[in-house]
Amino acid sequence: MNLPFEYDQVAVGEFGGTTPTTTDFANSRVVILPIPLDRTTSYVPGTRNGPHEILVASSHMELWDEETQTDVHSVGIYTLPEMEFPFATMDEVIREIRRVASELVSRDKFVFVLGGEHSITPAVVAAMAAKHPGLSVLQIDAHADLRESFMGTPHNHACAMRRTLEYARTTQVGIRSLSPEEAAAAAALPTEIFYDFNMREHADWIDRVVDSLSETVYITIDVDGFDPAIMPATGTPEPGGLSWYEALTLLRRVIEQRTVVGCDIVELTPLAGHVAPNFLCAKLIYKILSYRFRSALKS
Amino acid sequence: MNLPFEYDQVAVGEFGGTTPTTTDFANSRVVILPIPLDRTTSYVPGTRNGPHEILVASSHMELWDEETQTDVHSVGIYTLPEMEFPFATMDEVIREIRRVASELVSRDKFVFVLGGEHSITPAVVAAMAAKHPGLSVLQIDAHADLRESFMGTPHNHACAMRRTLEYARTTQVGIRSLSPEEAAAAAALPTEIFYDFNMREHADWIDRVVDSLSETVYITIDVDGFDPAIMPATGTPEPGGLSWYEALTLLRRVIEQRTVVGCDIVELTPLAGHVAPNFLCAKLIYKILSYRFRSALKS
Amino acid sequence: MNLPFEYDQVAVGEFGGTTPTTTDFANSRVVILPIPLDRTTSYVPGTRNGPHEILVASSHMELWDEETQTDVHSVGIYTLPEMEFPFATMDEVIREIRRVASELVSRDKFVFVLGGEHSITPAVVAAMAAKHPGLSVLQIDAHADLRESFMGTPHNHACAMRRTLEYARTTQVGIRSLSPEEAAAAAALPTEIFYDFNMREHADWIDRVVDSLSETVYITIDVDGFDPAIMPATGTPEPGGLSWYEALTLLRRVIEQRTVVGCDIVELTPLAGHVAPNFLCAKLIYKILSYRFRSALKS
Amino acid sequence: MNLPFEYDQVAVGEFGGTTPTTTDFANSRVVILPIPLDRTTSYVPGTRNGPHEILVASSHMELWDEETQTDVHSVGIYTLPEMEFPFATMDEVIREIRRVASELVSRDKFVFVLGGEHSITPAVVAAMAAKHPGLSVLQIDAHADLRESFMGTPHNHACAMRRTLEYARTTQVGIRSLSPEEAAAAAALPTEIFYDFNMREHADWIDRVVDSLSETVYITIDVDGFDPAIMPATGTPEPGGLSWYEALTLLRRVIEQRTVVGCDIVELTPLAGHVAPNFLCAKLIYKILSYRFRSALKS
Amino acid sequence: MNLPFEYDQVAVGEFGGTTPTTTDFANSRVVILPIPLDRTTSYVPGTRNGPHEILVASSHMELWDEETQTDVHSVGIYTLPEMEFPFATMDEVIREIRRVASELVSRDKFVFVLGGEHSITPAVVAAMAAKHPGLSVLQIDAHADLRESFMGTPHNHACAMRRTLEYARTTQVGIRSLSPEEAAAAAALPTEIFYDFNMREHADWIDRVVDSLSETVYITIDVDGFDPAIMPATGTPEPGGLSWYEALTLLRRVIEQRTVVGCDIVELTPLAGHVAPNFLCAKLIYKILSYRFRSALKS
Amino acid sequence: MNLPFEYDQVAVGEFGGTTPTTTDFANSRVVILPIPLDRTTSYVPGTRNGPHEILVASSHMELWDEETQTDVHSVGIYTLPEMEFPFATMDEVIREIRRVASELVSRDKFVFVLGGEHSITPAVVAAMAAKHPGLSVLQIDAHADLRESFMGTPHNHACAMRRTLEYARTTQVGIRSLSPEEAAAAAALPTEIFYDFNMREHADWIDRVVDSLSETVYITIDVDGFDPAIMPATGTPEPGGLSWYEALTLLRRVIEQRTVVGCDIVELTPLAGHVAPNFLCAKLIYKILSYRFRSALKS
Repeated sequence: MNLPFEYDQVAVGEFGGTTPTTTDFANSRVVILPIPLDRTTSYVPGTRNGPHEILVASSHMELWDEETQTDVHSVGIYTLPEMEFPFATMDEVIREIRRVASELVSRDKFVFVLGGEHSITPAVVAAMAAKHPGLSVLQIDAHADLRESFMGTPHNHACAMRRTLEYARTTQVGIRSLSPEEAAAAAALPTEIFYDFNMREHADWIDRVVDSLSETVYITIDVDGFDPAIMPATGTPEPGGLSWYEALTLLRRVIEQRTVVGCDIVELTPLAGHVAPNFLCAKLIYKILSYRFRSALKS
Repeated sequence: MNLPFEYDQVAVGEFGGTTPTTTDFANSRVVILPIPLDRTTSYVPGTRNGPHEILVASSHMELWDEETQTDVHSVGIYTLPEMEFPFATMDEVIREIRRVASELVSRDKFVFVLGGEHSITPAVVAAMAAKHPGLSVLQIDAHADLRESFMGTPHNHACAMRRTLEYARTTQVGIRSLSPEEAAAAAALPTEIFYDFNMREHADWIDRVVDSLSETVYITIDVDGFDPAIMPATGTPEPGGLSWYEALTLLRRVIEQRTVVGCDIVELTPLAGHVAPNFLCAKLIYKILSYRFRSALKS
Repeated sequence: MNLPFEYDQVAVGEFGGTTPTTTDFANSRVVILPIPLDRTTSYVPGTRNGPHEILVASSHMELWDEETQTDVHSVGIYTLPEMEFPFATMDEVIREIRRVASELVSRDKFVFVLGGEHSITPAVVAAMAAKHPGLSVLQIDAHADLRESFMGTPHNHACAMRRTLEYARTTQVGIRSLSPEEAAAAAALPTEIFYDFNMREHADWIDRVVDSLSETVYITIDVDGFDPAIMPATGTPEPGGLSWYEALTLLRRVIEQRTVVGCDIVELTPLAGHVAPNFLCAKLIYKILSYRFRSALKS
Repeated sequence: MNLPFEYDQVAVGEFGGTTPTTTDFANSRVVILPIPLDRTTSYVPGTRNGPHEILVASSHMELWDEETQTDVHSVGIYTLPEMEFPFATMDEVIREIRRVASELVSRDKFVFVLGGEHSITPAVVAAMAAKHPGLSVLQIDAHADLRESFMGTPHNHACAMRRTLEYARTTQVGIRSLSPEEAAAAAALPTEIFYDFNMREHADWIDRVVDSLSETVYITIDVDGFDPAIMPATGTPEPGGLSWYEALTLLRRVIEQRTVVGCDIVELTPLAGHVAPNFLCAKLIYKILSYRFRSALKS
Repeated sequence: MNLPFEYDQVAVGEFGGTTPTTTDFANSRVVILPIPLDRTTSYVPGTRNGPHEILVASSHMELWDEETQTDVHSVGIYTLPEMEFPFATMDEVIREIRRVASELVSRDKFVFVLGGEHSITPAVVAAMAAKHPGLSVLQIDAHADLRESFMGTPHNHACAMRRTLEYARTTQVGIRSLSPEEAAAAAALPTEIFYDFNMREHADWIDRVVDSLSETVYITIDVDGFDPAIMPATGTPEPGGLSWYEALTLLRRVIEQRTVVGCDIVELTPLAGHVAPNFLCAKLIYKILSYRFRSALKS
Repeated sequence: MNLPFEYDQVAVGEFGGTTPTTTDFANSRVVILPIPLDRTTSYVPGTRNGPHEILVASSHMELWDEETQTDVHSVGIYTLPEMEFPFATMDEVIREIRRVASELVSRDKFVFVLGGEHSITPAVVAAMAAKHPGLSVLQIDAHADLRESFMGTPHNHACAMRRTLEYARTTQVGIRSLSPEEAAAAAALPTEIFYDFNMREHADWIDRVVDSLSETVYITIDVDGFDPAIMPATGTPEPGGLSWYEALTLLRRVIEQRTVVGCDIVELTPLAGHVAPNFLCAKLIYKILSYRFRSALKS
């Protein structure tokens, strides 16, 4: 924006908006890509407002991370405008998301996608896997999302991981909801499921999750993987799920022991007048970036 | 439901549920068909909850109409279960709605459809027009809905009347929102538009609306045709619009001077904790039925 | 409250709380009696919060009335604490309300009751009628409330006016909802009904309302008598109803031409996060008091 | 419903509505009885909407239980229509609930009651205890509910367990709110209280709860027994309380070691726009049924 | 934003965001200046979210105005970023707003300010009056805002017009709330007040408003000037007020007969989950711009 | 209140309002001082309603504390009216709060302040420290609040503890949000920080907190110190934080081993329609008082 005069401005639509350090695409290590897709969600609609509310919340975060003793903002975080989808079919939508993700991957950006519904993940993983052969996917989620198709389409969010398996093998954490058909199919699929009801029974569950992952990892976080106590703002909030510090410990361990090349956070459906879930997402993104780039900052 | 014992039950999912007179499909003159379709709505989602909330509200209505001095409930009002759409494409959805509507029309039912989004109307009109050649359509709406296609599909709710025109000519009342492209196209289309900003300037505007209609009429009411003061519960609530008594006077006049063969009310997106708009829809249906069947009741 | 030191305090629970002029019971001409009864309401519960929210709203009103050119606050308005009902039966509740109202009437206070549900009105009218033989009641309401009994009790709010008729004749304004049984019974009851759908067809409708009233009048206002556009905060919000200025004109005329000895406003069910309806009630009370005591203030 | 044509329907008002397997009363092992009673609740009203919202939520559940490796739906779950209460007194209400519960018990159904307020429990327990001598009751609750009477009636929800003790001895779990009078009375009553603040201090607390129960057990779950973090939707949400997995572990253990003959879940007051608490209730019911009938399914 | 690749983007933070025609500051005739100031508002807080919600709503408007038969968007409408206020005192805030407004006025832009609270108006008027000697101000508002100071500061929103009078004379329309002190002071101030309760009694009230204005006019619209039926989203929603078409007729007449040089719309406090008021503001701005620039578009 | 007749009244605005034992200032050991200050809060406004909602919630508490086996109400708890602030500057506000707090301290009351925003704490601590030399402050909070100034003022809530350090040394518990500047400054300040992410790693963390405190302690509780799962009703709800029983254990230990002379609970921003957070605050106050005065009650 070139104005012939200056004044203090609110940075709307930029992750961590309150920072004094502005940045540009070319010099940014991290790119935030908002994809407010909301086509096939059932029950409680509203994922389309997810990215915007995460960005608003992010402008109220403090920028110091007391755990890593860093301000990761300085690696350069560039927030792209929200994608718009003037398309008739999900095939076209998926193709466009894959194209945009590929553009970013080809420029060596660390891509952090903000959904939108979970059906966007396969397209992003496809772009990642083309660049990183042998990629595996860590999914935090309440639902297995392993249906072959749902409500007539293979692109429904209930099929997100079944589609993702076409590009990479997965480890699924926090799972506590699946259909008889998914349960039957899971055994034959290239996925390892950590069911929420028993995953904490062995103290080494996080080690076992890490062991299941290949060297290069993409992380997809469906917010309903969290306990609804801290994440009520989602379409089908299943009781149980990860606590804040369980998720952080898992993510820090994976990032320290593997190479994480991209991430998404999906299925936030903001609740009117209730900002805590939005804020959790903003903070979670910042924690992941702090873990991921702490060594870059300290060297 | 055949139970081996009896008790007083709440009649959930039946229009005007509190009445002591139960009824059956065969002997009902009126059939309520709930179609909670919610696929293409933008901005504020939620039309899928519309039919349910109208039915809940209807159970709190009184059944006497002081204006016509009748209890129209006695003609037999049968509420069908909500349609479900396990289909991938809007083409399939539209085809199924048309099939179900045709089944009802073929049995001489007066069909009252509860939407759901406006994209269901063309399918219902197609069924009606096949039975009633020369049918015309009265639309109460804020939006012209005359786009040829929108967001890649000809079945978007923004195209509802453009599609409807393939089956019947229309009169559009309360219009106060259209695109430059729709404005340009309207002149050549078989439709007469009464713009909200000037439609009350001539005292005879209702006569002129009636005159524009053929003998047999289908009525489609997009709830955003009403003033947002009384109807805030819709996706794009445009200021201006019809008051309660303006709408009643118009509807009564049309029903008295033409033969109305079916009706729909669409685009209600219930607001959490705010029942007045739901109640308005329930009462509006009851008023229309009272006007339509008053003579049947008195003979 | 006797404190050994002073500070600026928020006046919670006092009508028009921001005024600098404090007052006491003995010297107050007007007494506000909050009765948050909420026992028999159906559909949307919550009248118990009505009185409190009206009082909160009243503290944000300005105290000048530009129409009468007065500040009626100076006649002395005393707000009593909310009544509490540690009673098992409605008979006991009704008896206690009547007793308290009688205490106030016997001290020549102008009583303004804040409901709570409409079932409190008969008890207040009983107290008024004992002091003022020949009393008539003006009711503004959407519902006739003429049922003999409802849900097993004669004290349900749906029976409020049937019970009131045991003490005084009534004029009912804004009516647009009644059952077939009430419609049949109304003709033989000492009440005159002005139906909302046609009451404005004769320009002199207000004169006709006034003519129907005896010299001494009690006014009961069910907030659902108003258009839901301005009063959505009630249990069964019926479309149609009085506008703000219609109600003011009617009330001013009645007060100028008759002797109004008391008033109630009932059935407000506050909507979370939505203060306009609460504010309307506060302002309506202040307007009624301004009309009622303007001459006292000017002499 | 006998229609002369077919279409895909939304199953409103049926527990677990999305399943393809319909069922009938006679062949159902489990019967869901919705009792939306809402008469005496104080503070935040709204338990009357509880059963409906639980049923809506249940239609979005997956039907596989990964813990027991079963789909309990196949034992036959029949959902009765909601009870309606056209009665004046709580005595009549209680009598009617007991009668209906007895009808079900006499037909050897496993009855799962959905409240409504806690005052319905004594009537159900009375029906159960008549069939099962020596019945004991496990209560999960924040409140002791041991008042002799409250607000003038012995049927207030604050007296629910005092009334229940007339039919069966109880074990109370999660208690963290009681009056001085209840504390004084408790010692002499046939009840064992596990106070929330110290019940987890001994690792064997669940064993001690089981030991306190007789062979045949009825379970009553007041949702406020849960931590308000996961259950904010209740009238008096007390901090502390059971977590999701604590409750599941307790319930599984009781069901495995005793014979559970019926259950209720009460005091849900749905929050507008906030579905997680409703979903928790639906899932809790499904877990209890999975624990209860897993062996029936596997044999 | 210079990206090395393209995709369809959502235009967040631009008025009328859906238009395909992007624009730049230099070539824009109209500049939207969002000032989300929220420092002194009492009762219901939240004006800080007003500008953002108006811009979001504006992206869902259609761009054709059926009344003027124009698409005013083509004159160039440039939306500035929201102002931020890292200042301790209202004096500094006011000074900065005046400076920014002066920058825009000096570049011959038509400035449309989005508040924020009403206390921003005097600063904008000061900038306008310096350029346009003899400027008068048309205020649409429920409140006179003529207090000399309030809660210790002369910059409170309750003093907005008293401060404005230091730069220009005013005409106040829709007034229905003022204190005894304001009523007493008004007579001696250079302002003409049209009280809402009687301003429609003479059919020529709009002519009289226009007559009271000088040749060059600034318009300030406090949204509480509207009827709360259509504008509940404001801090102190006073019953009564302008309808949508009354406001449009007044504004069109003033714009046709005077030279309007700037405008603001203030005091919107968005209600969670309730978009109609936000949408009204967006549409009102578009109508004013259509009236103002229709001749420019047609020549 | 001296009324010439009696009736059962709702005790609005009194802590624990349902108790039958009324009390007076002189004989009360504990004084509740509501300070609804809401001037500088950013993001989500609304702390001004905090004190009122805590008091409403408190009237629904039971008065027995099962842990200490006491009814602390009997020590005398007097609730003062809410402070009002007709002042222009924060300097004046702070001075007045300090004056009122000093009046209470001089009368040997145990003062429990209800905020309002955190910026009130330094004024209260100033009054306390003047009476109790060597006072230390225990802060439970998500934010360090150690900024030297914010948004142009040293009295912003983001500076609350920096200001407090001018009167007393502090121990900060639950901290999980601070700016790079605060992190850099903290080392040189007389404060000990227990960061939330690692404070539970040593089982003796509570002992270490107690050890850090001097003999005489003031406790300030910013509600955002709690986990947003149980406390979503605050301006910037940071994930992580104290659970209910962690907080109780910490508070009980501090009270048992030190002399606590006063307390505040601040930054509650009530959520419309969501009472659990308000209730938590009321109960927390009652628990603190029970711990503090249990020995006084038993002797």
